[in-house]
Amino acid sequence: MAKNLKYYYDLMSQPSRALWIFLQQTKIPYENRLVNLGKGEHLTDEFKAVNRFQKVPCITDSQIQLAESVAIFRYLCREYTVPDHWYPADSRRRALVDEYLEWQHHNTRAVCATYFQYMWLRPRMFGSKIDPKRADQYRTQMETCLDFIEREFLGGGARFIVGDEISVADLLAACEIEQPRMAGYDPCDGRPNMAQWMARVRDSTAPFYDQAHKFVNKIAQDAATKHKL
Amino acid sequence: MAKNLKYYYDLMSQPSRALWIFLQQTKIPYENRLVNLGKGEHLTDEFKAVNRFQKVPCITDSQIQLAESVAIFRYLCREYTVPDHWYPADSRRRALVDEYLEWQHHNTRAVCATYFQYMWLRPRMFGSKIDPKRADQYRTQMETCLDFIEREFLGGGARFIVGDEISVADLLAACEIEQPRMAGYDPCDGRPNMAQWMARVRDSTAPFYDQAHKFVNKIAQDAATKHKL
Repeated sequence: MAKNLKYYYDLMSQPSRALWIFLQQTKIPYENRLVNLGKGEHLTDEFKAVNRFQKVPCITDSQIQLAESVAIFRYLCREYTVPDHWYPADSRRRALVDEYLEWQHHNTRAVCATYFQYMWLRPRMFGSKIDPKRADQYRTQMETCLDFIEREFLGGGARFIVGDEISVADLLAACEIEQPRMAGYDPCDGRPNMAQWMARVRDSTAPFYDQAHKFVNKIAQDAATKHKL
Repeated sequence: MAKNLKYYYDLMSQPSRALWIFLQQTKIPYENRLVNLGKGEHLTDEFKAVNRFQKVPCITDSQIQLAESVAIFRYLCREYTVPDHWYPADSRRRALVDEYLEWQHHNTRAVCATYFQYMWLRPRMFGSKIDPKRADQYRTQMETCLDFIEREFLGGGARFIVGDEISVADLLAACEIEQPRMAGYDPCDGRPNMAQWMARVRDSTAPFYDQAHKFVNKIAQDAATKHKL
């Protein structure tokens, strides 16, 4: 087992939240290394020496410097003793978890992050205006993806993305799908399977899920209140 | 071991080529299932029953229907006896292969495919015109990524992306980087590490690499000739 695990993250980052919840839930011992994205701490030379990609999340330990949340999940599941359901040893189930983990890059992650960045982050960071046509385009792409998840991943009666037990696929998916809530979009509205599944992910990882989403929930609450006024 | 492996692919697709080369090289027995993307065969109901994502590559066997090239690579390395270097059992090396495999989705794959589609595919399929400003933008994004690979992955004297032996990361990377050649862009020009590494990947998988790239090479040759005229 590798030693001296250090976890670099910012809870504003979706995969940072997913890994943070996983670390709490599995009780893997690690040291906190907060990297404040808002202050540009990921762009410093000091951080570049830790992660050449200059992104969070990433880890270091006695044998490796490793980026990319999906690669980190797999590595931790090998290096530490964690319950099998997170990343099943069964070849078929592992392959289906892998399929979601690879698929999400250009789907769940891309579309939810793009919508959030365009509608919420860029106007606040750069003062950029929202073009209603482009906003529509990004919302439609996101809704197509969320409808696909509702129907294909969650529509068959399974409790989680792969089967009846929670895996790292659910953590990554849920944390991405929380993101557009900050821009006033409710992903569960009109998607009953998604609403139930999100509640199951949250319950299965309580109280850490809510702790990781404290800031997200505050912003989402403000957005929802504004929407109603 | 799963039985009756069927491989659905089109050699115009970069990850289809990577997996095809891997299957030849490892002598994993499988049945060919060509899916002609140009004819829209991936959009049929028949193919949708095989792969709900309606993309190639994908596989089926006695126990699974599986999409996403990276997930397929991992599954095949578990289910069949293949030389360790393709996906190392050593935890640290495996993690570094995984890091590239996850990173490439929004980098190598995204930027090379975007450039190729904008410069070559869309004008031929939809008659769309090339906006020089946007072409510049896509080329710059691609070059930033290729320069990063030249410097960070190939600059340390290693023969391959992770260490001195070829892995699935090299196959996926090389097949993506071949793609913009069809639009007249030479990724090895001014990148000596990349030129040597591409040659090593090709040599390590001869004659299959060239067989997989037969059509790509023909189009690239035509593009290079036009460029010189």
